[in-house]
Amino acid sequence: MHTGRFYTLTASCPDRVGIIARVTGFITEHQGWILESSFHADALDGRYFMRIEVRADSLPFSLAEFCSRFAPLAHELQMDWRISDSAVKKRVVILVSRQAHCLYDLLARWQSNELNIEIACVISNHATFKGFVEWHGIPFHHVPVTPENKPAAYAEVQRLFAAAQGDTMVLARYMQILPPELCAAYPGRIINIHHSFLPSFVGAKPYHQAYTRGVKLIGATCHYVTESLDQGPIIEQDVIRIDHSDSVEDMVRYGKDIEKTVLARGLRYHLEDRVLVHSNKTVVFR
Amino acid sequence: MHTGRFYTLTASCPDRVGIIARVTGFITEHQGWILESSFHADALDGRYFMRIEVRADSLPFSLAEFCSRFAPLAHELQMDWRISDSAVKKRVVILVSRQAHCLYDLLARWQSNELNIEIACVISNHATFKGFVEWHGIPFHHVPVTPENKPAAYAEVQRLFAAAQGDTMVLARYMQILPPELCAAYPGRIINIHHSFLPSFVGAKPYHQAYTRGVKLIGATCHYVTESLDQGPIIEQDVIRIDHSDSVEDMVRYGKDIEKTVLARGLRYHLEDRVLVHSNKTVVFR
Amino acid sequence: MHTGRFYTLTASCPDRVGIIARVTGFITEHQGWILESSFHADALDGRYFMRIEVRADSLPFSLAEFCSRFAPLAHELQMDWRISDSAVKKRVVILVSRQAHCLYDLLARWQSNELNIEIACVISNHATFKGFVEWHGIPFHHVPVTPENKPAAYAEVQRLFAAAQGDTMVLARYMQILPPELCAAYPGRIINIHHSFLPSFVGAKPYHQAYTRGVKLIGATCHYVTESLDQGPIIEQDVIRIDHSDSVEDMVRYGKDIEKTVLARGLRYHLEDRVLVHSNKTVVFR
Amino acid sequence: MHTGRFYTLTASCPDRVGIIARVTGFITEHQGWILESSFHADALDGRYFMRIEVRADSLPFSLAEFCSRFAPLAHELQMDWRISDSAVKKRVVILVSRQAHCLYDLLARWQSNELNIEIACVISNHATFKGFVEWHGIPFHHVPVTPENKPAAYAEVQRLFAAAQGDTMVLARYMQILPPELCAAYPGRIINIHHSFLPSFVGAKPYHQAYTRGVKLIGATCHYVTESLDQGPIIEQDVIRIDHSDSVEDMVRYGKDIEKTVLARGLRYHLEDRVLVHSNKTVVFR
Repeated sequence: MHTGRFYTLTASCPDRVGIIARVTGFITEHQGWILESSFHADALDGRYFMRIEVRADSLPFSLAEFCSRFAPLAHELQMDWRISDSAVKKRVVILVSRQAHCLYDLLARWQSNELNIEIACVISNHATFKGFVEWHGIPFHHVPVTPENKPAAYAEVQRLFAAAQGDTMVLARYMQILPPELCAAYPGRIINIHHSFLPSFVGAKPYHQAYTRGVKLIGATCHYVTESLDQGPIIEQDVIRIDHSDSVEDMVRYGKDIEKTVLARGLRYHLEDRVLVHSNKTVVFR
Repeated sequence: MHTGRFYTLTASCPDRVGIIARVTGFITEHQGWILESSFHADALDGRYFMRIEVRADSLPFSLAEFCSRFAPLAHELQMDWRISDSAVKKRVVILVSRQAHCLYDLLARWQSNELNIEIACVISNHATFKGFVEWHGIPFHHVPVTPENKPAAYAEVQRLFAAAQGDTMVLARYMQILPPELCAAYPGRIINIHHSFLPSFVGAKPYHQAYTRGVKLIGATCHYVTESLDQGPIIEQDVIRIDHSDSVEDMVRYGKDIEKTVLARGLRYHLEDRVLVHSNKTVVFR
Repeated sequence: MHTGRFYTLTASCPDRVGIIARVTGFITEHQGWILESSFHADALDGRYFMRIEVRADSLPFSLAEFCSRFAPLAHELQMDWRISDSAVKKRVVILVSRQAHCLYDLLARWQSNELNIEIACVISNHATFKGFVEWHGIPFHHVPVTPENKPAAYAEVQRLFAAAQGDTMVLARYMQILPPELCAAYPGRIINIHHSFLPSFVGAKPYHQAYTRGVKLIGATCHYVTESLDQGPIIEQDVIRIDHSDSVEDMVRYGKDIEKTVLARGLRYHLEDRVLVHSNKTVVFR
Repeated sequence: MHTGRFYTLTASCPDRVGIIARVTGFITEHQGWILESSFHADALDGRYFMRIEVRADSLPFSLAEFCSRFAPLAHELQMDWRISDSAVKKRVVILVSRQAHCLYDLLARWQSNELNIEIACVISNHATFKGFVEWHGIPFHHVPVTPENKPAAYAEVQRLFAAAQGDTMVLARYMQILPPELCAAYPGRIINIHHSFLPSFVGAKPYHQAYTRGVKLIGATCHYVTESLDQGPIIEQDVIRIDHSDSVEDMVRYGKDIEKTVLARGLRYHLEDRVLVHSNKTVVFR
């Protein structure tokens, strides 16, 4: 967490000799000051991943010029790459249903500048949190979802997300399954919190499933949403201990504490460009 | 967590043969249905601790009559005891300063009925959260504290707590040290969250202390406030892993997640009468 | 953990008013000193579970007489019950393959009297640890298992277990699947450690499965063996954090640390009569 | 964890523009294949840390020539640096007293090649484990320590360590305090496991101290030994949950499980050259 302005380069490419030297050599050539850097070689896939933070004021040119000068090297190394600017706040759209814990948690982090974001708007299938969200000065959209209106409802969600110029959509216990088209429209940009330790207990009522199986830990999983339910790349997970005396209702209550924490951690990794997706898995440079 | 009304008996007494039999025998005699029961013998001190939940509708009499009938047995066993009624919500007074995380967390739990309490009022030395608290329909009192006005300020805090008929005072990152008289006035009723794993890093700036010492985990401690700073009986603790790359600011940010979780857990144990204090330590019947 | 001799009563029965009072009343009648007691009501199933430790020297009669006097009450309450004597060491038979970590761990606990057991013998499908086991004065039986000799091999395992008067069979990373008949012969007496956080990654190569799915935590599960592979009642579980930089080989290495710890904890709960099985789940009175 | 031979460069130097580029540029110039690389900038101290693994067979020269060619660059960057060779096993000397858990644990890891080391010898102030150690083919030295013979005893320990050409001395619950001269003779080469979450409970009987304070977690700390008791740089720590029902004896028993795990993790980090010491703190590149 740096206080001054910085650019973050994230990239992956086929592994070969000299990648770090070439990339950091380019930065050094322009007197770029590297604040933080992480590298990872996936030996099985022969693929290389990196994330580099460079102080903006150490470079003699703008981000646009940085990009255009870097492009030939990236091309040569066959890179998938992007560069973000810490001065440009990401625009987050939150989808909620009637559960308070993740929403309160995210707004507290936003309110205290722990998350360096704009909350572009909140969308919900219930009006429950309209007053609470609007009190914070954040637009709230009530988009009811019924068995009959699903296509129209999700079209409206997508329209609102686009209109809000959203970068990232967060399903903060939204409790609805997004249609495949919507998932496919924003790959790597929709983040969900599932209330189990995936791949255990996919789908509905995971705490009931956990109770029936008699597990001794329950978990939560933050993952990118894909067209396959609860099968997307996992960003973060955690668990909490339970025992025989805990009812399903107890699990639901305890589970909230890890759901909100895991969602917040996973979302922060995503927003800070710490997550690179490959083969339905993630590299997370913490 | 039971849905119907129940009474909770908590007690401690010198250990001897037959305590459980006598107490549960008394309950059974009146057809009392025990929902949950926990017992603990402290072998070193020769002291016995218990907590028993009885379904209210299984007893043929009121709580008052329960108490008066139980009193002779309690006297014979030299018990410290109390009985609470799940239908009577405890009245909690929250003290905050300018940090949002614990306050948002507690209000989310209250809003969703996870904590079965009344928040009688919020008191703060800053006006920061006045609007947020009042939006929830909870009275907010701004009581500034300066080096000059401390006695008057804390007298006002005490007056407000009494006027609100507070059962429990929660220091939700209040950042001020309560005067000994105030601590002494409410033994076992003031709960603090300290941002270190006590007894390490007592007092001010614990994250700075942790950074300097180079620990690999940071923690938070929920404890009863006594006249000795950060020395009161510990109710709950937890830790989170850090590493060399984390600055003090990172620790502060990560620490918030355990602070609010540990405070919420400790507070719930307290409010559900799961905590018995003895020799500056706690028995916590989870 | 008590130093003097004690009896441990474990029981379950249909829930009704007065169970604790009746059972502890019986013990008190004979001046029995209760060291530790735990009770659990399963509200959904209407079943009651208990575990009570009584100091042997506080009772005026032998364990046999304790049992015969208690039997009528147990019958009246429709109890499944048993009483064990801390002075009688349980006889454990360990099955291993070629991995050292669980075997060394169990022998260290046995050597230091942390586990109050006799290791009746060690059985292995490889001769790898023959010298190591025999050096400790423990009989070692090499029973090779091949695709051809399986029935004979497992008959020999069962014969050795019976001949050793084994109470509990421990599969300490045995890596072989016991035949259904053997599983069925000793319900609640065969304990396995599975190297995943069940129900995720049942069957072979769970670390490979975990690697492919990209989970952020890996786990281990100690469970009773039943005829359904990896489906038996779970006694204990734990997890450890991994990240994208960990290969399958790294997971295997880290996993060993939780495998041995989880096995040792689960085994201790079992040996101290802390585990009661019901509906393919366990009540564990820690 | 790589299977082929590799060299590990670890270094620290004053921070400036271009360090990574210069160092990786040098490696790339010789076609060196980087397997793993980690970098850390300590912003407060303006110091830079790195660790780079290079495949041995990718370089056209020997380790000696690598060193002599790298020396001028290291000099220019004012580096503290070293390069180790994965083909050269580090020689570890283990000091134990009468507790089995850490010794069994380390020997199991050595036996299974999880730790790529030679155990040069085991030294103990008791003869307890003589047979066990020698059975493994490892020399065992019994060096009794009494209040009277301390100087002579520790001179003998130092002589044995030197004679064994020890790289690292491991105090695996040795229970004796090394004299300052011995500590000073091997800075960053003596590793201890302390049975508390330092800085809580320095010195003798930490579990008794923890019991008295009523903490809810107990811990273990792996650290380098310095002349100040329990004040050396911390390499690794972990904790385990306890509650009011746990006696000091229970804590001792549970504590063993984290002691051995934390020691093994810390030792592995050290042996794999993942630990850099600075300002009585450690950078640990996991």
